[in-house]
Amino acid sequence: MSRRYSRDSVEFARVLSFNDGLFAIAMTLLVVSIAVPTISDSSSISELADALNDLSANFISFFISFAVIGRYWLAHHLFVSLLAAMDQAIIGLNLVYLAFIAFLPFPTALLGEYFENPLSIVIYAVNVGIISALEVVLFRHAYRADLLAQKPTPDVYRFGVIASPTPVAFFVISIPFAFISTTLAVVIWFGSAPLGIMLQRRAPEGAEKLFG
Amino acid sequence: MSRRYSRDSVEFARVLSFNDGLFAIAMTLLVVSIAVPTISDSSSISELADALNDLSANFISFFISFAVIGRYWLAHHLFVSLLAAMDQAIIGLNLVYLAFIAFLPFPTALLGEYFENPLSIVIYAVNVGIISALEVVLFRHAYRADLLAQKPTPDVYRFGVIASPTPVAFFVISIPFAFISTTLAVVIWFGSAPLGIMLQRRAPEGAEKLFG
Amino acid sequence: MSRRYSRDSVEFARVLSFNDGLFAIAMTLLVVSIAVPTISDSSSISELADALNDLSANFISFFISFAVIGRYWLAHHLFVSLLAAMDQAIIGLNLVYLAFIAFLPFPTALLGEYFENPLSIVIYAVNVGIISALEVVLFRHAYRADLLAQKPTPDVYRFGVIASPTPVAFFVISIPFAFISTTLAVVIWFGSAPLGIMLQRRAPEGAEKLFG
Amino acid sequence: MSRRYSRDSVEFARVLSFNDGLFAIAMTLLVVSIAVPTISDSSSISELADALNDLSANFISFFISFAVIGRYWLAHHLFVSLLAAMDQAIIGLNLVYLAFIAFLPFPTALLGEYFENPLSIVIYAVNVGIISALEVVLFRHAYRADLLAQKPTPDVYRFGVIASPTPVAFFVISIPFAFISTTLAVVIWFGSAPLGIMLQRRAPEGAEKLFG
Repeated sequence: MSRRYSRDSVEFARVLSFNDGLFAIAMTLLVVSIAVPTISDSSSISELADALNDLSANFISFFISFAVIGRYWLAHHLFVSLLAAMDQAIIGLNLVYLAFIAFLPFPTALLGEYFENPLSIVIYAVNVGIISALEVVLFRHAYRADLLAQKPTPDVYRFGVIASPTPVAFFVISIPFAFISTTLAVVIWFGSAPLGIMLQRRAPEGAEKLFG
Repeated sequence: MSRRYSRDSVEFARVLSFNDGLFAIAMTLLVVSIAVPTISDSSSISELADALNDLSANFISFFISFAVIGRYWLAHHLFVSLLAAMDQAIIGLNLVYLAFIAFLPFPTALLGEYFENPLSIVIYAVNVGIISALEVVLFRHAYRADLLAQKPTPDVYRFGVIASPTPVAFFVISIPFAFISTTLAVVIWFGSAPLGIMLQRRAPEGAEKLFG
Repeated sequence: MSRRYSRDSVEFARVLSFNDGLFAIAMTLLVVSIAVPTISDSSSISELADALNDLSANFISFFISFAVIGRYWLAHHLFVSLLAAMDQAIIGLNLVYLAFIAFLPFPTALLGEYFENPLSIVIYAVNVGIISALEVVLFRHAYRADLLAQKPTPDVYRFGVIASPTPVAFFVISIPFAFISTTLAVVIWFGSAPLGIMLQRRAPEGAEKLFG
Repeated sequence: MSRRYSRDSVEFARVLSFNDGLFAIAMTLLVVSIAVPTISDSSSISELADALNDLSANFISFFISFAVIGRYWLAHHLFVSLLAAMDQAIIGLNLVYLAFIAFLPFPTALLGEYFENPLSIVIYAVNVGIISALEVVLFRHAYRADLLAQKPTPDVYRFGVIASPTPVAFFVISIPFAFISTTLAVVIWFGSAPLGIMLQRRAPEGAEKLFG
């Protein structure tokens, strides 16, 4: 049988400090890819303003990605708050999940550079979709391997498995639209937020205690 | 109702380790933007000295930004020491606050490159102003959602709300001066330090126990 | 006599948070070395697809290295879970081990850039080999200095010392093959995984409790 | 009076996790400044070997700096193990100390690029000297503000204040020699290690318990 580490063990804490360190770095590295522009007259306000204006897609994609990764961190924080213990399998699955978090700064930089190119949107959407899918894998494993502090009812469990990948659906739906207009694709991404709130209202009894 | 995590929970600790990791990275990345200069005669002392001299604005902005972010970290450390618990809202607000901490290396690099350009100062001042404003938002939420270990008296609370954004005022005031002289603008920033000490002397009774 | 820090001390925890921070950074930095490609027509899908295709070796080496470092992190996590205490010597040895973890992003970037060049494979294999060898050094010291919570039997100990460097053997064996085909060398690396499982089946009694 | 945070408080832990995060990043960033070389025939072993050979100063300075910062981390780890509590002043002083740790990757990269240039050695030596001097400042403050768990005798205290800056002396002495030969200067740096051991033998009674 696999080793289990309870909530108060050094081993449980290590997974989280490694995890949160990786999140913090991925979020901070996003800014590194934005290079300071080179201008000919270094004291010219208008020239610097123009140069910075050219970087606006980079700034937008920094804040979008910070929000996206931040949202995943919040979801991970909430998920771990439900765990009573971790086993080797969930630590391994978590590493796979982190690989795609660590990779995200590249699609972000790509999006900042080629915001008008549908391929940038597609790659970003696929990366984010994989992360959301892995969230479901983590939750399923925690449920099946009995790692949750309070076993949810089957109703609540089904709700969690359906509600969690909602953003994936939106990212997938956005892909064909990216070929018409990249801005439209981004608008569709943000559509997942109100739907999330709507879903929460239809949550079965007991779900609130788990995900509230 | 929103979930609450008490001071001794794994969840409270995670927010802080994520937070401190992000601060540590933002402060360390400041140096990465300073590129090693290229010189023609690699063993010439005078040539290397000249090349490094050209980077002096970069060195100054590294140490200014390290001091600025360090000061925010100290304030955050003090703020958290007053908290008995965290709720979901304060964790979310803290992420917004961290987005602007994570962004700061860019204005810092800009300032290092274009120290004489008023626009660099303005962008830096606006970024720092937003961070200070978010500090007040965090403190207000903690007060209203009853997260503080010792509820301050209304007098002390009002003092905290006024004293905390003092640096914002100075950064805002410095903006028009930046167009006259960038050095003058920087001098005005440092003016906030003695005023902070003066304000502390006029603090109502009980404030010392909270902010001392 | 050297100082000892028990499992529940601040000092034991610090070594781990430093350690895990370094691992998290090394794994996240892997993506930084992948530069966003420059294309002439920024909205052309086919041009961007071609440019990204040229980066496929970089993507492959990112995920290989993430898996390799992740595997070392898992092994380190398991190793520390066996420790009852740390002494100064193991903290020092751990730093030497971390130096080669921190260095790994360079061979990774080299491999991504020169995947067809046998020398990239050799350098990568040597780096990984040193890390595996240092794992054995750490385990031996922990055994001899009585740092393990449960002293393994000599049989189990010998098994641990032999099983742990298995990947080293594979990396060493792969080196000459790298000069014939770099892809072949990579295939040999992955050969260590099934052998690891086979070895585990031949483990002496009691080893499962330690390494399972 | 200033706030005090005892060893088991969240606040004590935060200073350390911030501190160790910064150390880990500074040590890992050292490798980022080493760029993968560009060669004309990407599959040529000899060309890649030549290109890597040109980077040997960068590799040497990576491992020297990793050892140097690692040694400071070990000293900091030992120092904190003596503390019963922290006050605001020591947290502030620690930030000043960290500023120079965070800056070290720049002199390291400079040394890697211009190993033959005496000015690189001087800048590196000055940076390292400042860090060692700040170690003494931290130790003095801890002694005077009564933060140490076991107050050392005046003899032991004086020994600590003298022994700790020994490396500073060596770095200062090495500066003029750097103008004759940079290799000689590096050899002098390493001279501090045996002297440190000699000093330890002459330590007054009770020092071993503190620094052993």
